[in-house]
Amino acid sequence: MADEALFQFLHNELIQYVYKSSEHGEMENGRCITKLENMGFRVGQGLIERFTRDTARFKDELDVMKFVCKDFWTCVFKKQIDNLRTNHQGIYVLQDNKFRLLTQLSAGKQYLEHAPKYLAFTCGLVRGGLANLGVKSIVTAEVSVMPACKFQVMIQKM
Amino acid sequence: MADEALFQFLHNELIQYVYKSSEHGEMENGRCITKLENMGFRVGQGLIERFTRDTARFKDELDVMKFVCKDFWTCVFKKQIDNLRTNHQGIYVLQDNKFRLLTQLSAGKQYLEHAPKYLAFTCGLVRGGLANLGVKSIVTAEVSVMPACKFQVMIQKM
Repeated sequence: MADEALFQFLHNELIQYVYKSSEHGEMENGRCITKLENMGFRVGQGLIERFTRDTARFKDELDVMKFVCKDFWTCVFKKQIDNLRTNHQGIYVLQDNKFRLLTQLSAGKQYLEHAPKYLAFTCGLVRGGLANLGVKSIVTAEVSVMPACKFQVMIQKM
Repeated sequence: MADEALFQFLHNELIQYVYKSSEHGEMENGRCITKLENMGFRVGQGLIERFTRDTARFKDELDVMKFVCKDFWTCVFKKQIDNLRTNHQGIYVLQDNKFRLLTQLSAGKQYLEHAPKYLAFTCGLVRGGLANLGVKSIVTAEVSVMPACKFQVMIQKM
């Protein structure tokens, strides 16, 4: 339990620091999100590199996505993705019904507007992980009811 | 192993971001160190709170220090402190012969100057943890040969 806490607390500090070190204008929010996303990207790259060192080669894109939903997610968030859907045309939706970085926020609607900053790092994490497995993508996140969360991965065909 | 990697990578991003977001003057280095230390402090406070929830009350100061060296260190760095010394007058020296946040740096002397920024967060972590256990302290770190590291804790009598 303390392991997860370490990541959570550090993640919180990161968000606070990024927001504090920028001025608080409307324009700035987007930049903070981008910074957090970029940090997630690099962490995701590093993690997947270590993590796949001894795994077999992936069969296809879907195989890669399954790996992200199971092994990668478990490593970072201590649970699997609850639901993976795809339109078989390069769009995947990963649903986590109890996303760990949101569980610390109150479930009320009044905090919904703060959700994006708690998701940016993870979007980057997924994008970075996939990038290092040769899958270029755009990752966005969406929250309707906290702490459930959907990550949409759009594969960029090369 | 991937668990530790997550913390390491995130810690690296934090350092890089703190240094990047400040100008690089000699004056600024101290401020960056302080920021990292403060972040560590808050993370330490949070961690120890979760971590001691179900432990028995500590007997004395030494008992607290032993807890930090064993349980707390293992939780964060996946190993215990190798050596704990005290002068029995409020100074404790915690030696880690293979400090995890330094193992990624080359052991050569040329990187010794970069060591402080990799230690600041941990100094704060220890200080924050102790503070939440009612022990006010000043924590400094010293590296002579990487990746070995000594943390000196000076208890502030209240």
